[in-house]
Amino acid sequence: MHLHHVGIAVADLDQSIDLYRRVFGAELVHRATSDGDGLEAAFLKVGHAELELLSPLGEDSPVGKFLARRGPGMHHVAFGVADIEGAIAKARSEGIELIDAEPRMGMHGSRIAFLHPKGVGGVLTELVET
Amino acid sequence: MHLHHVGIAVADLDQSIDLYRRVFGAELVHRATSDGDGLEAAFLKVGHAELELLSPLGEDSPVGKFLARRGPGMHHVAFGVADIEGAIAKARSEGIELIDAEPRMGMHGSRIAFLHPKGVGGVLTELVET
Repeated sequence: MHLHHVGIAVADLDQSIDLYRRVFGAELVHRATSDGDGLEAAFLKVGHAELELLSPLGEDSPVGKFLARRGPGMHHVAFGVADIEGAIAKARSEGIELIDAEPRMGMHGSRIAFLHPKGVGGVLTELVET
Repeated sequence: MHLHHVGIAVADLDQSIDLYRRVFGAELVHRATSDGDGLEAAFLKVGHAELELLSPLGEDSPVGKFLARRGPGMHHVAFGVADIEGAIAKARSEGIELIDAEPRMGMHGSRIAFLHPKGVGGVLTELVET
């Protein structure tokens, strides 16, 4: 596995993209909206990994509720895996609660699955098939 | 710049190291205690980046207070830079508040500097000279 990206919840997507490009030399590689997840996301490359900036489409969306509760900041950590079914099975066998028991399509064209933060030391954790 | 590591505050360092080794295939590369920062840290390699697991030496330490306030979870994001003085100057010129106005020695033998989260969308951000 490798560190694939860090998800960051932001209040203003354009402003945040601009900040990471200007100050940290990040390169915008993809931007997409998911009505199902209720968010707009921007993926920025920083070295071998990415930042995923997450902006809610509404206050009732998961990221909208996160922002209301905790404010902007780090949201999740994603690991790239070659075999996502195997990685899900491994997590399940370790007793980690799954948010997605089966892989689903992510915003970046890869299959993903989320693990519940309570099984991973408070860290919302995503698996991304690469 | 590149994504160098993600810092994660943990309640039990040994248990967390074990979790990331077993479930995510992370490799423990370094472990150290800093009395000055009031923490014990473990660095684990996951692909090209690292996880830094942070465990407080006492409740009054910065990480101890973080755990009391927010619980275990994501703590900071670190970017590797070739020229840390240049990166600090760039952040200052962008109006980002600095926690460390000058580089200081980090636990991994590299010079580091922290930027205040309020200037970086709520993300405590570290610069690491590489």
